[in-house]
Amino acid sequence: MTFKVKSEQLSFAGKQSVYTHQSSSTHCEMEFSIYLPPQAQHKKCPVLYYLSGLTCTQDNVTTKGGFQKYASEQGLIIVCPDTSPRGTNYAMEHDSYDFGSGAGFYLNATQAPWHETYRMYEYIVNELPDFINSNFATDPDRCGIFGHSMGGHGALTIGLKNPDQYSSISAFAPIVAPSQCPWGKKALSGYLGNSQADWKEYDATELILNGYKSPNKILIDQGTADDFLKEQLKPELFSQACQKNSQRLELRMQPGYDHSYYFMNTFMQDHIKFHALNLDSQ
Amino acid sequence: MTFKVKSEQLSFAGKQSVYTHQSSSTHCEMEFSIYLPPQAQHKKCPVLYYLSGLTCTQDNVTTKGGFQKYASEQGLIIVCPDTSPRGTNYAMEHDSYDFGSGAGFYLNATQAPWHETYRMYEYIVNELPDFINSNFATDPDRCGIFGHSMGGHGALTIGLKNPDQYSSISAFAPIVAPSQCPWGKKALSGYLGNSQADWKEYDATELILNGYKSPNKILIDQGTADDFLKEQLKPELFSQACQKNSQRLELRMQPGYDHSYYFMNTFMQDHIKFHALNLDSQ
Repeated sequence: MTFKVKSEQLSFAGKQSVYTHQSSSTHCEMEFSIYLPPQAQHKKCPVLYYLSGLTCTQDNVTTKGGFQKYASEQGLIIVCPDTSPRGTNYAMEHDSYDFGSGAGFYLNATQAPWHETYRMYEYIVNELPDFINSNFATDPDRCGIFGHSMGGHGALTIGLKNPDQYSSISAFAPIVAPSQCPWGKKALSGYLGNSQADWKEYDATELILNGYKSPNKILIDQGTADDFLKEQLKPELFSQACQKNSQRLELRMQPGYDHSYYFMNTFMQDHIKFHALNLDSQ
Repeated sequence: MTFKVKSEQLSFAGKQSVYTHQSSSTHCEMEFSIYLPPQAQHKKCPVLYYLSGLTCTQDNVTTKGGFQKYASEQGLIIVCPDTSPRGTNYAMEHDSYDFGSGAGFYLNATQAPWHETYRMYEYIVNELPDFINSNFATDPDRCGIFGHSMGGHGALTIGLKNPDQYSSISAFAPIVAPSQCPWGKKALSGYLGNSQADWKEYDATELILNGYKSPNKILIDQGTADDFLKEQLKPELFSQACQKNSQRLELRMQPGYDHSYYFMNTFMQDHIKFHALNLDSQ
């Protein structure tokens, strides 16, 4: 597989790069960023995948997330993929912020025409890690996953379904029960069709209720002043499911914080340290 | 003077806001951001003004600079103004990245038509501090100034000419001798005319050579992989002037770093700590 280096910049003694490559999952050119901490120059490091929210590309968190300092301190590689395929022009693909481009929801679509390219689950779980592990100094046995909002949904569902691959999961303000909120219902029906049975494998709360488990405690931070808290995010549904099926969860309600990168920045250090501890990165 | 709150968000237990207000210096609506650390809720805090580089607004450093964590830890208020007036449409004002809008160079223009509104020196030195000190819990006797590139030029020249107002100065990759580089020559001739004698009061190296002093050591960080280093920035000219006239300077050449916000992020903590120490913020 060939790839192009779009940029490469020194940051906290490590290297922040952006790459593009042709994807066999999404049948288009995909872009991702990768931060290699200074430790990666002389040893294999654990990898932490970060999944972004609605409307974002890799660029938002790479330039505004503020993770580089902590990844440099903890010796973690951070990989940030895009949020959808970018090469197509399906009807209505680019018309709304919560469906189509920028809103791939980290699933494999089954409905036409989306099933052709909207295969972000396949891309994130198989193609991208294969590519990263083949080209960078990673330790493939020590991976974690985290994300924000729709990307928090992605981190929870992908992490829960692949516990051997991602032993450490956290999220900022995640969509935890897409079957029960407007963003989720629109996406799941559009990409998967109207049978709600098919939605369950992409719903973190349903996965927990059906016995999926993460080997470590899951960390979630959620701002109480988040405009999307009550209608879209509903962390209490996930919390109740975890309690019912004995999944360890630390849900921290953060007073006064909203849904923005300012919120995420504030708690980024905690999340990176959480994963470093789980992945034994030191 | 009236102002509008454009946004207000919690960040590292402090408040990151953006304001707009009608300016008597630039005769247009100006926008700035202000970060109030948690300490500002119960005591007056020192203020650190940050001046941005070419093409930027307040938004770039506010969202990508990563200063909020350190300002929160050190109890510093951070104010980030825009880089030029925004209300006019002079011929060629919006045609190039290094002159006109986004490129005010923190001076008072004397040439028509720029002299009508391009009065960023007046705005930064008098109007904005008056406004900030009247509306927020500041200690007006403890102020510092720093900036990046063109904003580093602004911080050095404004700080050196007003040592009682700004006792602490630092810069990331500043333009230190605008009379001797293409960006500076274009701006100074365009805004001030062709008499090089008039340029001296807006040239940090000339100011040092003419006896201007900062009461504290000046801190400058400069990446060695900065594309603008040799042609535009020339820190050695400032260093030689400081040595000649006994201005204390710490110029740190940082191997491999470029001109970007990744570079600035990496050394932001050092600069905030430097100012906190000078301004006795604890």
